Formats: sequence, structure tokens, C-alpha cells
Amino acid sequence: MAGERVPAATAAATGGAPIAVPDDAKAPRTDRGRRTQQAILDAAAAEFGERGFHEASISGITRRAGVALGSFYTYFDSKDAVFRALVAHMSGQVRDHVAPGIRAAKDGIAAERAGLADFIAFVRQHKEIYRIIDESEFVDPDSFRRHYATTATRIQSRLEAAAARGELRTDVGEIHAWAVMGMNVFLGLRYGVWDEDVPEGAVADTIADMLARGIGAKG
Amino acid sequence: MAGERVPAATAAATGGAPIAVPDDAKAPRTDRGRRTQQAILDAAAAEFGERGFHEASISGITRRAGVALGSFYTYFDSKDAVFRALVAHMSGQVRDHVAPGIRAAKDGIAAERAGLADFIAFVRQHKEIYRIIDESEFVDPDSFRRHYATTATRIQSRLEAAAARGELRTDVGEIHAWAVMGMNVFLGLRYGVWDEDVPEGAVADTIADMLARGIGAKG
Repeated sequence: MAGERVPAATAAATGGAPIAVPDDAKAPRTDRGRRTQQAILDAAAAEFGERGFHEASISGITRRAGVALGSFYTYFDSKDAVFRALVAHMSGQVRDHVAPGIRAAKDGIAAERAGLADFIAFVRQHKEIYRIIDESEFVDPDSFRRHYATTATRIQSRLEAAAARGELRTDVGEIHAWAVMGMNVFLGLRYGVWDEDVPEGAVADTIADMLARGIGAKG
Repeated sequence: MAGERVPAATAAATGGAPIAVPDDAKAPRTDRGRRTQQAILDAAAAEFGERGFHEASISGITRRAGVALGSFYTYFDSKDAVFRALVAHMSGQVRDHVAPGIRAAKDGIAAERAGLADFIAFVRQHKEIYRIIDESEFVDPDSFRRHYATTATRIQSRLEAAAARGELRTDVGEIHAWAVMGMNVFLGLRYGVWDEDVPEGAVADTIADMLARGIGAKG
């Protein structure tokens, strides 16, 4: 299967889906509105990432975004609502950032290699993502659970699709998906957030080598 | 190397070290004092686990422990201090719970299998451990970092010792250790805290099978 592109059905399962907008975020109807909402979310990432949920304030967010308080309330009802929207947004950002490399990979193992390398690279540029998603466990447990459950399901779909193409062992499933997600989260913490002493490609190569033998069809 | 016990040097690296007592926890000098301190830590686990750090109170802890407020201050200076001591205590509890199975395992892969199965079983009985260690990222970042850095170092030592005995590939190292820790943490979350729908032995068998091929000497 080397050289073959991942089929469209798999691509859809690994990225490209619209970002889930929580019920209490109000969808902008104009491009300008979308830019304002995006500026507020970017500012919220900085505010929550630096100060944590409890110390963060709506006025801190609007000041960073350079928008009026009224603009904030056009799109979000509360600090809780913007936090919830931010977790969904970041979850989608990670997914969208790693999707192209996964789609372009020649097989299932190369897809996991690309996903991990691109994830670590993303984390190095967005270190606040750990603090925000981790804090959702306390601020909004549903968001926390949704992020990891959705991510694990996406990984499982892509492992099973690769197995169906004969690239991975036929018994790959949910347990492997959670294992891959767990590895990626902790390798991102160690080699993305804490220290950048090892190139992300070297980390990904080591893991791809283990996976190729461990769950590869010829492993 | 099948049938050979893990050498004592490895056992020392995987468990049995004394629990690190933070500087601001006052060591009890009598058996009765140790029992009281232990009762306070158990009560703190329940209080922080159920209510979270911010909602938890010292009076909630002493009420659960059935001790007077004065007894609390004999051993801990503050809510922060008892939280910090609790994270170190729980980190040590996990280590001590999984150590015998790891020590008794016939080789490096069997040790990882036993460690994971025993960890999931422990988590099922102590679901509050996730909430408490995860919250340390915000309440006491040094404790959070120490817990994972120490755990990864312990796993790395045991993988390298197994490699030196010819049971694992000679190139195992820090990246593999972080991968194994990440898998275990997320498999514990999914199959220990969230749901108990898969026996812990089945989860551990699946991972041991992947590791045997992935990093085993004959993989």
C-alpha cells in the first residue's frame, strides 16, 4: 500500500469536520464578526493560559483582544462560555493542524509518525494548550471528556482504516487508540512544553519504529 | 531470560524508596502520630478528590479524619502544605502498589504488563488520584512536574535494565519511557476512572503484546 494516499473516508475521519460550537457561543453572521470572535478566542487563550481560569477575567480578554466589552457579550455569555468555546476551538485547531500530514502519509504508520511530529511542533508554538485543556477537567468536565473521547475515536478510526487496507494488524482497536493518544499527549508535554531538547522528528521516528513493529501488519 | 527474576537493583529502581516528605510536612515521632498523619492524608484525598482544591477546607479534612484542628496543624502548616504532601503520598502509593508485580515479573515485557494491570486495578479503587494529581498542575506545579519526571525516570531505569539483560532492544530510552507512562495514564483514565467495561488484564495483555513486538529483543 506504500505510496497510496489515505482514502477520502479516512481523511474525513481524521480532520476537516467543522469545529463544534457550544450552544452558548453565538455564531457571527459576518466576516468582520468572525474576525472579532477569533480575536476574542486568541486573547482568551493567552489570558487563560497565563493566568488560569480563576484569575482570568473578561476585561483581561477584551483588553488583549482590543475589543469593547459589548463585543465580547455579542459572542459569549460569560467567562465559562468563552472558556468552553476555547477548549472546543483548541481541540479543533490541533485536529486541523495535524490533519494534512496524516492525510498525505503513505500508510498507517507514517500517518501516526506525521501526526506526532506535527503535534509536538504545534505544541511548541502553543504551549498554553496543555494548561487550558487540562484545566477543563475542573472548569468544565464535559469539555475535557469530549476532547479526549473525540480524539481517541478519531485515532481508532484511522488505525482501523489502515488495518482494513492491510497496513496494520487486524486486531487494532480502542485500546491501541487510547495508548497512541496517551503517548502523544505525554511526549508533547515532555518534548513540546517542558523542553525542546530533542527534534520532534526524532521523537516521532522512535515511536513510529516501535509502532511499525508493534502493530504494523509485518510486525 | 524467561523465568529469571528482576535483579534487586531494578527492584530498588522501581519501588521501595521512602516517600518523599515535603519540607513543610512535619514528620511524626510516634506510631500514634504516624496513624494520625495517615488519617489526615486519607481524609485530604477524599476532600480534595470530591470538592477540588479551591472548595476544599481544612475543617472538611479534620471532620472527615475525626481529628481536632490542632492535630492538623501539628503535621501541616496550611491547605497548600497538606495538598503538596498528598500528591507526594499518592505518587508513592502508586509506585508501591505496582512494585511487587513488577519485581516478580519474569522479564521486562511481563514487568510492564504487570505494572499496567496493577495500575488500572489501583485506579479503580482510588479514582480520586487523577483529579488530585491533575489539579496539582495548577495548585502546585512543582509537585506535578516531580510526579511525572520521577515516574518517567523510574520507567526508563527499568526498561534500560531489561535491555541490559537482553530482554528489550538496546535502543530503549527516555522517549520510550515517556510513551509507556503516557499510555498507562490514559489507559488508566479510560479503563479505570471513566469505565470498567474491559478487564484490566485484557488491556494489559493488548499493550504487552504491542510492546513485545515493538521493543522486545526479538521484536
